[in-house]
Amino acid sequence: MKLSCSQFELNTALQLVSRAVSNRPTHPVLANVLLAADEVTGKLRLTGFDLSLGIQTSIPASIESSGAITLPAKLFGEIVSKLSNDSPLLLTTDESCQQVELTSKSSTYQVRGMLADDFPDLPLVESGTSLKLNPLLLSSAIKSTLFASSTDDAKQLLTGVNLTFDGYGIESAATDGHRLAVLNLTNILCNSKDNDIASEIDKFSITLPSKSLREVEKFLSTCDINQPINFFIDKGQVVFISVDDIITIRALEGSYPNYSQLLPETFENVLEFDRKEFIASLERIAVLADQHNNVIKVTTDSTANLIKISTDAQDIGTGFESLPISFKGESFQIAFNVRYLLDGLKVIDSNFIKLSCNAPTTPAVFSPVDSDSNFTYLVMPIQIRN
Amino acid sequence: MKLSCSQFELNTALQLVSRAVSNRPTHPVLANVLLAADEVTGKLRLTGFDLSLGIQTSIPASIESSGAITLPAKLFGEIVSKLSNDSPLLLTTDESCQQVELTSKSSTYQVRGMLADDFPDLPLVESGTSLKLNPLLLSSAIKSTLFASSTDDAKQLLTGVNLTFDGYGIESAATDGHRLAVLNLTNILCNSKDNDIASEIDKFSITLPSKSLREVEKFLSTCDINQPINFFIDKGQVVFISVDDIITIRALEGSYPNYSQLLPETFENVLEFDRKEFIASLERIAVLADQHNNVIKVTTDSTANLIKISTDAQDIGTGFESLPISFKGESFQIAFNVRYLLDGLKVIDSNFIKLSCNAPTTPAVFSPVDSDSNFTYLVMPIQIRN
Repeated sequence: MKLSCSQFELNTALQLVSRAVSNRPTHPVLANVLLAADEVTGKLRLTGFDLSLGIQTSIPASIESSGAITLPAKLFGEIVSKLSNDSPLLLTTDESCQQVELTSKSSTYQVRGMLADDFPDLPLVESGTSLKLNPLLLSSAIKSTLFASSTDDAKQLLTGVNLTFDGYGIESAATDGHRLAVLNLTNILCNSKDNDIASEIDKFSITLPSKSLREVEKFLSTCDINQPINFFIDKGQVVFISVDDIITIRALEGSYPNYSQLLPETFENVLEFDRKEFIASLERIAVLADQHNNVIKVTTDSTANLIKISTDAQDIGTGFESLPISFKGESFQIAFNVRYLLDGLKVIDSNFIKLSCNAPTTPAVFSPVDSDSNFTYLVMPIQIRN
Repeated sequence: MKLSCSQFELNTALQLVSRAVSNRPTHPVLANVLLAADEVTGKLRLTGFDLSLGIQTSIPASIESSGAITLPAKLFGEIVSKLSNDSPLLLTTDESCQQVELTSKSSTYQVRGMLADDFPDLPLVESGTSLKLNPLLLSSAIKSTLFASSTDDAKQLLTGVNLTFDGYGIESAATDGHRLAVLNLTNILCNSKDNDIASEIDKFSITLPSKSLREVEKFLSTCDINQPINFFIDKGQVVFISVDDIITIRALEGSYPNYSQLLPETFENVLEFDRKEFIASLERIAVLADQHNNVIKVTTDSTANLIKISTDAQDIGTGFESLPISFKGESFQIAFNVRYLLDGLKVIDSNFIKLSCNAPTTPAVFSPVDSDSNFTYLVMPIQIRN
């Protein structure tokens, strides 16, 4: 392999594919990125893969001879990032294809790598169900639900986000057993206007690991929002393709819990309040609540049209906040983990929020008011002794 | 104690004095800040003190009744920082003076504290030697040398910065045994023009803990640069006073090593090179050097007027950088810890740097070229086997 390319383009590509390189690789070669140069296409292809998440991209290069090598992602990426961007980089592998020489201006670096053959193949499914997705809405589907997934590896499927496609839209859902976030997007499919295509696709549901989706979300934030993302799904594997960039994710195995049955059908109490004011009050009271057990009590007073939020951190202190509300129902008291409330309220994009609940021991639901977004955030209250 | 004050001013004052509150206090009351309100002066005084570093400031307040209390620095500071800044804060202590009620708009917080009497007195020396210092130059004296002090608590005096006053200026020095940074400032004294004052002051030397000086430096960056800092020194204690703010530091005990004897008087080899280019080369090569033992070799070639920098990280890779120099002397090779070089070169403020050295085993000295700054950075080379 012998080629020259731009420092800026190589650096950007290395930063991108390195997101799929594990910090604790299960095999030495997985700490590396794969570089493959092809004289015919004039492209240098880079790949990072942790066996679950894979990212591949290509950059233009002047290729004198084709070839491939794997190089330590962190070390090689750091050296390239610090090289001058006003002269081209020259990359040459040695005869054994296990070492590269990197030259730029007055800098020369030799970096030891491993054979390209040792690098596992990326599972590039381009068959099975195929959809064209709006990148902005896909990003929103991930961001609005991902936070509610579990960070406890023992919870398996609950460490992921469940995506359900019904032929016309996508429902994204995540739960850790204490709270559940669901976003329903009907206009995410760029090819859904063509009813023939939509009706040809079977309903399916897949659960993708949150850790990988976090990288997809970062990737989407750099994409052209007018360019649909091609989405392929087959045999427990999904692939996102955007121009030169490919992301593959291995789905989590098993069937996701039927979360829709958790959502109450009717509510006795419905409160409406200003989202930003509620968040500001919760952030203040959380300082004290965090000192004890994160519990805050929400008390309504139907005569005053006020909500009272309080916490008692025993020997440390107590806090009270009051907030005007519009309210239908009887006076009641309900307690929550303040961190769960803050997580969910921060992803809702409306000015006003609705809190719907029944008894202080049954699920409460937060949802936006006057918004196009079809978002539901269910939180289990905390049982309190008075 | 009963008073009202501005959220913004209380928050700023709490942030400042909290810098002197230890994260691991040796006594519970040292996790608190002292608040003392005085009806007569109309001021609320705040104090943080970790027994070594003390910071005190005052803010205006409408005081209904005088009094004092100590409150947990972190918790109280966090609540105040999150309160609305468009309405005044009301602070009221209870009868026992161990709890405060904080009210702002629709928020009410009760925070448990401890008696003001339990808080140790700040050692406010305002006798002894007294100087007026230029805040900008004092900041520079700290910043240019502090990095070379030791972070190993067992090294006692070497964990500090030594300040020597000779009647007309200040010399600031720090060493960890491997490198030494010295900055000589002749114009730091705002009262040095008055020769009578200068000659009345005896020569003295004091070593202040780097940890405390780091806070002084942060403090100086917010000061009015036209307002001299009053500096008092007496009985192993120094006090910095700027308008309403007071910082006290307990000096380290013992006599600082006579570092001036370490500086060679003559040099066989003197090299001059561009500082930014040298730093950029070192930062690249450091990526590889850090993988092994941080060692880089500097080789001069008197015929080519080039300096070569190289590192060999054994099984990982090798790196070479070359840099044009102006050079007087024989060709030679010398090795350094790359991190020591980078630390020192980053605080030098000239475009060109001079490296003066003799044998590859005797101290090398870096100093600015064409600069008013009287800065010397001595680094012990690393002995290498060829």
